[in-house]
Amino acid sequence: MPNILVIHGPNLQLLGRREPETYGTMTLDAINQQLENLARELDAHLRIEQHNSEGGIVSLIAEAMDWADAILINPAAYTHTSVAIRDAVAASGLPAVEVHLSNIHKREEFRRHSFIAGVASGQICGFGVQSYLLGLRAACNLCSSSHS
Amino acid sequence: MPNILVIHGPNLQLLGRREPETYGTMTLDAINQQLENLARELDAHLRIEQHNSEGGIVSLIAEAMDWADAILINPAAYTHTSVAIRDAVAASGLPAVEVHLSNIHKREEFRRHSFIAGVASGQICGFGVQSYLLGLRAACNLCSSSHS
Amino acid sequence: MPNILVIHGPNLQLLGRREPETYGTMTLDAINQQLENLARELDAHLRIEQHNSEGGIVSLIAEAMDWADAILINPAAYTHTSVAIRDAVAASGLPAVEVHLSNIHKREEFRRHSFIAGVASGQICGFGVQSYLLGLRAACNLCSSSHS
Amino acid sequence: MPNILVIHGPNLQLLGRREPETYGTMTLDAINQQLENLARELDAHLRIEQHNSEGGIVSLIAEAMDWADAILINPAAYTHTSVAIRDAVAASGLPAVEVHLSNIHKREEFRRHSFIAGVASGQICGFGVQSYLLGLRAACNLCSSSHS
Amino acid sequence: MPNILVIHGPNLQLLGRREPETYGTMTLDAINQQLENLARELDAHLRIEQHNSEGGIVSLIAEAMDWADAILINPAAYTHTSVAIRDAVAASGLPAVEVHLSNIHKREEFRRHSFIAGVASGQICGFGVQSYLLGLRAACNLCSSSHS
Amino acid sequence: MPNILVIHGPNLQLLGRREPETYGTMTLDAINQQLENLARELDAHLRIEQHNSEGGIVSLIAEAMDWADAILINPAAYTHTSVAIRDAVAASGLPAVEVHLSNIHKREEFRRHSFIAGVASGQICGFGVQSYLLGLRAACNLCSSSHS
Amino acid sequence: MPNILVIHGPNLQLLGRREPETYGTMTLDAINQQLENLARELDAHLRIEQHNSEGGIVSLIAEAMDWADAILINPAAYTHTSVAIRDAVAASGLPAVEVHLSNIHKREEFRRHSFIAGVASGQICGFGVQSYLLGLRAACNLCSSSHS
Amino acid sequence: MPNILVIHGPNLQLLGRREPETYGTMTLDAINQQLENLARELDAHLRIEQHNSEGGIVSLIAEAMDWADAILINPAAYTHTSVAIRDAVAASGLPAVEVHLSNIHKREEFRRHSFIAGVASGQICGFGVQSYLLGLRAACNLCSSSHS
Amino acid sequence: MPNILVIHGPNLQLLGRREPETYGTMTLDAINQQLENLARELDAHLRIEQHNSEGGIVSLIAEAMDWADAILINPAAYTHTSVAIRDAVAASGLPAVEVHLSNIHKREEFRRHSFIAGVASGQICGFGVQSYLLGLRAACNLCSSSHS
Amino acid sequence: MPNILVIHGPNLQLLGRREPETYGTMTLDAINQQLENLARELDAHLRIEQHNSEGGIVSLIAEAMDWADAILINPAAYTHTSVAIRDAVAASGLPAVEVHLSNIHKREEFRRHSFIAGVASGQICGFGVQSYLLGLRAACNLCSSSHS
Amino acid sequence: MPNILVIHGPNLQLLGRREPETYGTMTLDAINQQLENLARELDAHLRIEQHNSEGGIVSLIAEAMDWADAILINPAAYTHTSVAIRDAVAASGLPAVEVHLSNIHKREEFRRHSFIAGVASGQICGFGVQSYLLGLRAACNLCSSSHS
Amino acid sequence: MPNILVIHGPNLQLLGRREPETYGTMTLDAINQQLENLARELDAHLRIEQHNSEGGIVSLIAEAMDWADAILINPAAYTHTSVAIRDAVAASGLPAVEVHLSNIHKREEFRRHSFIAGVASGQICGFGVQSYLLGLRAACNLCSSSHS
Repeated sequence: MPNILVIHGPNLQLLGRREPETYGTMTLDAINQQLENLARELDAHLRIEQHNSEGGIVSLIAEAMDWADAILINPAAYTHTSVAIRDAVAASGLPAVEVHLSNIHKREEFRRHSFIAGVASGQICGFGVQSYLLGLRAACNLCSSSHS
Repeated sequence: MPNILVIHGPNLQLLGRREPETYGTMTLDAINQQLENLARELDAHLRIEQHNSEGGIVSLIAEAMDWADAILINPAAYTHTSVAIRDAVAASGLPAVEVHLSNIHKREEFRRHSFIAGVASGQICGFGVQSYLLGLRAACNLCSSSHS
Repeated sequence: MPNILVIHGPNLQLLGRREPETYGTMTLDAINQQLENLARELDAHLRIEQHNSEGGIVSLIAEAMDWADAILINPAAYTHTSVAIRDAVAASGLPAVEVHLSNIHKREEFRRHSFIAGVASGQICGFGVQSYLLGLRAACNLCSSSHS
Repeated sequence: MPNILVIHGPNLQLLGRREPETYGTMTLDAINQQLENLARELDAHLRIEQHNSEGGIVSLIAEAMDWADAILINPAAYTHTSVAIRDAVAASGLPAVEVHLSNIHKREEFRRHSFIAGVASGQICGFGVQSYLLGLRAACNLCSSSHS
Repeated sequence: MPNILVIHGPNLQLLGRREPETYGTMTLDAINQQLENLARELDAHLRIEQHNSEGGIVSLIAEAMDWADAILINPAAYTHTSVAIRDAVAASGLPAVEVHLSNIHKREEFRRHSFIAGVASGQICGFGVQSYLLGLRAACNLCSSSHS
Repeated sequence: MPNILVIHGPNLQLLGRREPETYGTMTLDAINQQLENLARELDAHLRIEQHNSEGGIVSLIAEAMDWADAILINPAAYTHTSVAIRDAVAASGLPAVEVHLSNIHKREEFRRHSFIAGVASGQICGFGVQSYLLGLRAACNLCSSSHS
Repeated sequence: MPNILVIHGPNLQLLGRREPETYGTMTLDAINQQLENLARELDAHLRIEQHNSEGGIVSLIAEAMDWADAILINPAAYTHTSVAIRDAVAASGLPAVEVHLSNIHKREEFRRHSFIAGVASGQICGFGVQSYLLGLRAACNLCSSSHS
Repeated sequence: MPNILVIHGPNLQLLGRREPETYGTMTLDAINQQLENLARELDAHLRIEQHNSEGGIVSLIAEAMDWADAILINPAAYTHTSVAIRDAVAASGLPAVEVHLSNIHKREEFRRHSFIAGVASGQICGFGVQSYLLGLRAACNLCSSSHS
Repeated sequence: MPNILVIHGPNLQLLGRREPETYGTMTLDAINQQLENLARELDAHLRIEQHNSEGGIVSLIAEAMDWADAILINPAAYTHTSVAIRDAVAASGLPAVEVHLSNIHKREEFRRHSFIAGVASGQICGFGVQSYLLGLRAACNLCSSSHS
Repeated sequence: MPNILVIHGPNLQLLGRREPETYGTMTLDAINQQLENLARELDAHLRIEQHNSEGGIVSLIAEAMDWADAILINPAAYTHTSVAIRDAVAASGLPAVEVHLSNIHKREEFRRHSFIAGVASGQICGFGVQSYLLGLRAACNLCSSSHS
Repeated sequence: MPNILVIHGPNLQLLGRREPETYGTMTLDAINQQLENLARELDAHLRIEQHNSEGGIVSLIAEAMDWADAILINPAAYTHTSVAIRDAVAASGLPAVEVHLSNIHKREEFRRHSFIAGVASGQICGFGVQSYLLGLRAACNLCSSSHS
Repeated sequence: MPNILVIHGPNLQLLGRREPETYGTMTLDAINQQLENLARELDAHLRIEQHNSEGGIVSLIAEAMDWADAILINPAAYTHTSVAIRDAVAASGLPAVEVHLSNIHKREEFRRHSFIAGVASGQICGFGVQSYLLGLRAACNLCSSSHS
């Protein structure tokens, strides 16, 4: 039964209240509920965290080296600016799945580059809450293939 | 029951024979088999095509306006060079899911830009055959949300 | 009586069905009808072709060396990506008029560069079907000046 | 009967005397005569101005808001450097046709960008005096479509 | 009576001690005193915060959605690097006034771009403490216009 | 009692008539009236000029060396293209306040660079007519600090 | 006795008719004759193909995996635009020699970059028909070194 | 006896008053006096003009086609922004010598590019008033070589 | 006896566990031990801190103004992204020595630029733990030269 | 019987000792022996030089104007940095063949540009010692075509 | 009586033999003769050197610190590539006049940037041998102004 | 006892005479004396060379393959322009320590890139003569670790 660290980056606590034309009307709690439901179905254990601070996310990932089998991360704004989170993911040695609610490749130029992508196993974007759910499937799949 | 056009771009007919360190050892037939299996599970109907020609893919997409509910496409090399396929996807008005076997954001600079991403609903990359399977789930989900 | 090759590039077969807010509601057949009408008025003979394939357009232009006096071309998406069509036009030695339905200089950055413009006599864009009609006048005029 | 403001930009008073290998041997007076002839044929009324000063052209366009139905402009050198003329065209709210004697897309890099194109209806270039005549047809057509 | 959140970004706690040739000799306390005086005059209520942490500023802005009518922010170094603060301002839906003590457009190249400007109502820079005072006037004015 | 030269750049004579969604519905006369009112309150004397010509603005600034204490300038389109106005401001040796009705940092890429900012004391943008009023306060403040 | 696939890219069927000042007056048939003569001398077997279509060339290369020992390719215009042909060459695993009639490094900027070079063994350009003949020698040499 | 048009660009009327650390303390009148003295020595006739307006300089150059043998021009700020003056110089067909008081290659990046240099015979910069005097010698020399 | 603040940036707590092929197998504790040993030899006093948070490092540096004589900093990932730390170092007025375990000039493009270098006395990189030890010597040397 | 100057650029004296994975194990003497053998076969006379100094190579080429019929040059590192060698080749008026052991288009970005290519007849790269031998054939061929 | 070091850069020994359409038919000896003649007239003493080697020119300039009052240098190809000569000129502390036979601003892009210009007093280009003669006048003038 | 080649690049012979505000007042002899003193302390043997010529430095490094254990190099101006020295260092296979007196990352843009850094073990800059002394320690350390 894989242990998966789920990280929601900055401002995601505002989901449902924030720019619904871009991010939809579902709250973070509702997304987490759907993730938990799917985790039960896939027989996975989740630890879900939301952080506005880059350093906090770095620490979270570093500590996950000791217990987690994979990381599911929506780095939000830090996607485009954080070398520190990139380095943390690489240092952790854990397979990481990067997800985004919106299709970042359709937005402002500065959102098209991800520092995280260079160290993640893969990236899923543009499907709203489904990005998370597909990402969880991908993460579980990565765990099972590395365990087999 | 959604109708989904699945397009494999150039050189994908060589899968399993071609650069296995990048693309894995699974053949295109095996991938298609897995897609059909999942389609049955998700109650979807697939039409699967592989094309080496840009113009052929353009025609395929244009014709899909008349029967398909969504497109699942791995544009392969044309991802980075084809405005014509981009325009075809946009013209079709169909929701499109772009998938890649490898994580294109980790490869040569010229592979990091996708002309298709600007008109696709979302993008999934880096998970090997799972990219296709997750993409099919995403495509079915897009159909059901636009139908409801 | 000049012979003019009229080429419609990829996706133009969808005109009238495709993104009407950008390309209008007139079909390709209707445009061709207007071109034929004007050709009669200007005493020109047209051969009209639509192709989704870059190689197909290259072959068409190469063969036109033997019978045509000028080329009227809307290269559509290939405007921005095709060196092969550029080389074909240059190789043909025929005067070429490049036309676009929309004003490409107002659209996405990648649509502002034309590989064809470097070898065409001139460019007309932004006037919808009128771009074609003005282009036909320009092509006939080029024929008559090179014949006199 | 549409009223059209025709603007010739800087140095165009020298036409026929200036670099004939690029701009031809026809004088500005001869071009204007051909424009007036075509205007009679198309049942349009022209006011033709030549200005070397950017500010003068800006004022001309601003005043045209009160009487003109369209603008036919060859901004010449200001094509590439004038945000002020761009803003004037946009502010006027009038449909504008941008014309150039030479094919600007074939010349020095700095001539390939037009600040005016972003606010014009369309652009015609490369056909010598025919650029103006085709442009007048386009302008009249724009007037009739917006009047109908 | 508008409620305004005033945010001082990183290192501003050092004002008066730090590079006086660039930032002047006035301390942050003195600036805050002048802000409070003007707020009394303009009948506004201020909450003033200084933070060295990007995540801390993000949280502050997110929470302000519940009580503030406008934001007056000097993002200091985060101006040029923080997409997270940009997203927080956008998510808050509050009008924001961006201020800088120095004229950032006269300094190093990397200080000329502001991620915040793209989501702020306006920007004031170069006037030292007056940047704050003018910014407070602007913020109050934005509140009154949106309230009327 | 400071003497302040107020310069409105090209096309600003059209305010209220021009693109109201960007520039608002207030006319230039109304803005000038508000400036005069505030000048009386601040005990300043204004000379207000509007010019469409770059050279005209250059001359105006050069002559101001003999009588003015500060310049309040909205260079409009010349913001982005005029080295001559930049040089005039620098040559005048007068403190200059650059203002813009709209937030230029949110608009087209070419509007984000100001040649004037490099020689101005500060910049205020995005607050509509308030940009001018705040700018006048800033200019008066600069005069009083350099006089004391 | 090595089997070598010789590919002539788009427009090369026009050799001898096309821009002789750049490409010389020799026809493609004459070049092929010289290649066959040299092949006999070097004891090699050639299959020679000319294609205007990118997809056609991709397919040709893919099929060559089954019978060829090396590829001699003049990708012509596709040199600069085709990732698909690059991928096909890489996928084939065959040594490839890239040749050009003209010295592409002396021509337009866009002709100086080759997508094929990154996967070819080497490149020969600028020697007219000799580029092909030297390339055939290089290809045979590559076969013999990999066979020994 | 050659006729030479001497043009001083914008803001040069301020010489001696303007930024003396960059441009020295000599007035424009004093420079003109030295030019007249040298002209007498070299047996040349000068017409000296100073203009703040780009259009004014364009007109001056165009009219010089009828009487001048060479142009000596310090385009000042227009050096870096005026395609119109470049076109006027080219159109005039007259040899032109471009001079600058300061060494423009040592100053801000935007001053290092000259639109005029591309059509001038040569450029002299960095020697203060000597730039003009050397430039006059160069202009006379160009006249005598083209006359012989 | 100089007081030196030693700062280890984000993820350095993982040293010895993290990507040993890049960063070696020595733990942070072992490095600190070596630093303390050398400090005793050089008669210096160290305060050693590790922080994952940008804001935390900013605060640390600001507070060091009151007690430290120099800073020895390995900013790790923040080297490339943090203007805030750059500003803190500049504001502190303390001599700073920037060190890196790996040779950052040999790694990914984005690691070659250091925001800190612009305000540090010097930079040492590529020598593993020796980078720190040499950096401590450099820092002590800077203290003694500024004290003498 | 053509006289050919063969130039080996900097560091090539180390061949066989230097980075064998990139440059092979053959020494420069062995390459020269093979060149002499082929020269005998092709009835050519060679003068072979190796130089580490840019100026030395420039002098060698200049002197070759008096006796050589062609140049065969591997400029090695100077390929990418030497305008002086480029100018020497152009000044010599001799046909030049540029060769490289490795495929420079596959290596670091800075090795992909050749200053020499712009003045050479052609370029051959990527075939190890065969690059030299093919280059000698090309050089002899150039001599015979210019002599006939 | 000023001592002036005159340096001719690489390939200039070929003048008169080399590309006469660009550099004219005058030999270096003839230029030197004209320089000596003018030096006598201006009461200056010249030491004239030609060097193909960058290091040789660096040494020459360094030694000139001990005896010369000014440098007149045509760095030829090294203009665009040599930081070492730039540093030598700066280190010498001598006023330097940079001259070029051709107008470098009209030639290939890479010839438009001069590393020397950043440390020279001024630059003269485009006047053939007159560039040297005007440069000598400028150098003498610099000597007399720094001596007075 | 390690043998270390110490290379001083161009213009360093002028140290103490050259721009002391940038490079200090210490002469090269004094630096060499300090290096020798430290070498005795560290039990190393030095060979110290200063060269103005790129080719000379290349030769020096190539020859060092036979006797040296490490290289300590201040490439000065060649840091930024010499691929040949880069290749020599790589070819030598010796560990190399790159040092600079000044902090090159704080100076002109073109000084921030080092061709040498890509092949050096590490880089030390900004500490004046201490850069050399720290560099010698680093070089000795590299020798001892590779010997152990």
